[in-house]
Amino acid sequence: MIRIYDDQELTIEEILARDPAPAREAEALVAEIIADVRRRGDEALFDYCRRFDHNRLEDLRVSGEEIEEALRAAEPDLLESLELAAANIRNFHKRQLRQGFVIAEEAGKIMGQRVLPLERVGIYVPGGTAAYPSTVLMNAIPAALAGVERIVMASPASAEGRLNPAVLAAAKVAGVTDIYKIGGAQAVAALAYGTESVSRVDKIVGPGNLFVATAKRQVFGVVDIDMIAGPSEILAISDGTMEARILAADLLSQAEHDKNAAAVLITTSPGQAREVQAELERQIPLLPRAGICREAIDKNGKIILTDTVARAVEIANRIAPEHLELCLDDAFAWLPQIKHAGSVFLGKNAPEALGDYLGGPNHTLPTGGTARFSSPLSVDDFIKKSSFIYYSRDALADVEKNIRLLARAEGLEAHGQSVAARFDRIRDLRKQVRS
Amino acid sequence: MIRIYDDQELTIEEILARDPAPAREAEALVAEIIADVRRRGDEALFDYCRRFDHNRLEDLRVSGEEIEEALRAAEPDLLESLELAAANIRNFHKRQLRQGFVIAEEAGKIMGQRVLPLERVGIYVPGGTAAYPSTVLMNAIPAALAGVERIVMASPASAEGRLNPAVLAAAKVAGVTDIYKIGGAQAVAALAYGTESVSRVDKIVGPGNLFVATAKRQVFGVVDIDMIAGPSEILAISDGTMEARILAADLLSQAEHDKNAAAVLITTSPGQAREVQAELERQIPLLPRAGICREAIDKNGKIILTDTVARAVEIANRIAPEHLELCLDDAFAWLPQIKHAGSVFLGKNAPEALGDYLGGPNHTLPTGGTARFSSPLSVDDFIKKSSFIYYSRDALADVEKNIRLLARAEGLEAHGQSVAARFDRIRDLRKQVRS
Repeated sequence: MIRIYDDQELTIEEILARDPAPAREAEALVAEIIADVRRRGDEALFDYCRRFDHNRLEDLRVSGEEIEEALRAAEPDLLESLELAAANIRNFHKRQLRQGFVIAEEAGKIMGQRVLPLERVGIYVPGGTAAYPSTVLMNAIPAALAGVERIVMASPASAEGRLNPAVLAAAKVAGVTDIYKIGGAQAVAALAYGTESVSRVDKIVGPGNLFVATAKRQVFGVVDIDMIAGPSEILAISDGTMEARILAADLLSQAEHDKNAAAVLITTSPGQAREVQAELERQIPLLPRAGICREAIDKNGKIILTDTVARAVEIANRIAPEHLELCLDDAFAWLPQIKHAGSVFLGKNAPEALGDYLGGPNHTLPTGGTARFSSPLSVDDFIKKSSFIYYSRDALADVEKNIRLLARAEGLEAHGQSVAARFDRIRDLRKQVRS
Repeated sequence: MIRIYDDQELTIEEILARDPAPAREAEALVAEIIADVRRRGDEALFDYCRRFDHNRLEDLRVSGEEIEEALRAAEPDLLESLELAAANIRNFHKRQLRQGFVIAEEAGKIMGQRVLPLERVGIYVPGGTAAYPSTVLMNAIPAALAGVERIVMASPASAEGRLNPAVLAAAKVAGVTDIYKIGGAQAVAALAYGTESVSRVDKIVGPGNLFVATAKRQVFGVVDIDMIAGPSEILAISDGTMEARILAADLLSQAEHDKNAAAVLITTSPGQAREVQAELERQIPLLPRAGICREAIDKNGKIILTDTVARAVEIANRIAPEHLELCLDDAFAWLPQIKHAGSVFLGKNAPEALGDYLGGPNHTLPTGGTARFSSPLSVDDFIKKSSFIYYSRDALADVEKNIRLLARAEGLEAHGQSVAARFDRIRDLRKQVRS
């Protein structure tokens, strides 16, 4: 049963118990898999598919025909829902598109910043018994909007060598350009280093199990990666006016993700706290994933009582939750006070599930308190910036003295010399103070 | 002596030899120092100051009086140069400031993205015999523009317990709010976890030696970090029209950074290649850091001959250099073809040193080919985004079916239930397919 605590009874760290140290047990195995894929390429990939996915593939790549087949096989209602979600996600993320700038204000000086898409991006999508079409949309649509040329998806196939039709349909809708039937650390290795059939990418994004996360961490630097997500979290704030049945359902939508998921309610109403507690007990047994919910709620579920909403908001800022539901009639009034949260769900009709699937904002959000310094996945994750500068000879002459002084202060005389060389002044600088 | 190669004689990997594997030898010592600072706080910091910086501090914090004294002690010309540099850097970086957005287009649906500053940022500045006031400006000014409340600088003090006056002056000019006389892994630990006198930050930026880099890597996740910079690189492209003396001086301004720095020239003129080779030999002995230049040029200096500028640009894109000088009269004409470079220096009067000190763009740039996916340090590094979403009851009702279908496709029935609960429809879902 979920426990109810008084304000101050728990420290901030205890409210959302987080383990900052990543699990290390897969390091050696993953390093071996990566080395093997680098060495043997496709041959290694086929071997791992047999060993881990129990299939015998003839081609690692999903054919155009398989995609068409998936589109025909997908329920029309589901396809329509994917298209609605994609349209909303596109509409939100296109507002994130940025322009470069140029500064041309002073004679002889031009400088600026260009915004350029990454060329090739890899998206990992978990497979096996589960299927996550929403993951495909949330990762591929911002990449496509950014202008990424090659959007490569990797996901493990079933024993029959197939990917889930809804996942393939989502890939088609989202603008994925290449799809491979590869999973686990071997997929990350193939995306990072390339093989005969997989062309290497510049960045790998998407969720995954311990092996995928460990592999991403190991190839980081060779390619860029998105954040390594920790267990998912929800923090709901109520002033007692939201029905307990609804609050309980929202907490459970988080809890069903996995047994380490965290669901916390902060409420100003002791009566509501007890009702939510009872509702959770009533609703858990009605769910297909009752076992997971039970464990998550018992282990990481908490209800905290505070005197005021202001105090609840203060706690929320210190926790910096991934998902923050402000289950209040005046939710907008509190938004300016929220300093740290991945995504804020305002009012009583914005359940987290709305954001998970089709509201428009991204569902890839900073976990574990990293909302203090990290952001939701966005178009920004698929672009890079490059600066440029031009000076005329006269403009450079004007600042020669300043550059020489600054260079000398840092003991870097050759920096000053490179400017002086433009004005025929290569000097013997050996008498300068060494550093 | 620098060697001259024909096009195709070296692979891309050989042109800029890079070691993707970070050095690991400091891992254990750094882990011990971090644990010690977490355990003993200030006491540990005072001990490390004695041990590594050979000073006996009474206070870790630099006082307002010390800063005023440094401003009085600094050469007026140098102070003026710092102020000019700061003004240019500010003018460039303020163009990077971003607004959030709100989408309020459909009845009952509001969503958007807020842009929020990080609260507290730590800047590491190397100290000891060297002084890097430009590092202070390049890191602190974007943070101040972003709206960061606390900009905390850490730098090791001299044996007399002092920081370099130019560094303190730069901190004052750039808007640093707190300065500590701490260096090495212990400084990174103090910034990440806090001690009695150091308040912890959300992100740590700035260059540093192996111990600092290793410590940043180890605390990553607890706080955010900027990139871990590899050896600095310059790639200059010439069509033979730039004077050899100037090209040699530019290559040496890079080479003097450290013995692993890389300086590469691609030219279409064999005659110029030989002249640059001779000029390097002439200029190296004139420099205070001749030994470092000698080693860097002999080890990582290269001149590559190509038939055309187009081919040189193609090679540059495959290398993705940190600094790219287009030493051409028609440099602007080539800019659109540059896909991967940290910063591009256009024409014959924009030496790298201009960008290092005072042009305006940031000098913290992606090294080691990471310009394929990374960007210069910018205001973006000191903000985070947070999304929000509001739906009315009617708006949610319109998409209930879609959310339920998508949730079911992913085997996450409680997600659908959380929407249904708003409409009094808590169902027994145990008969649904389990996943």
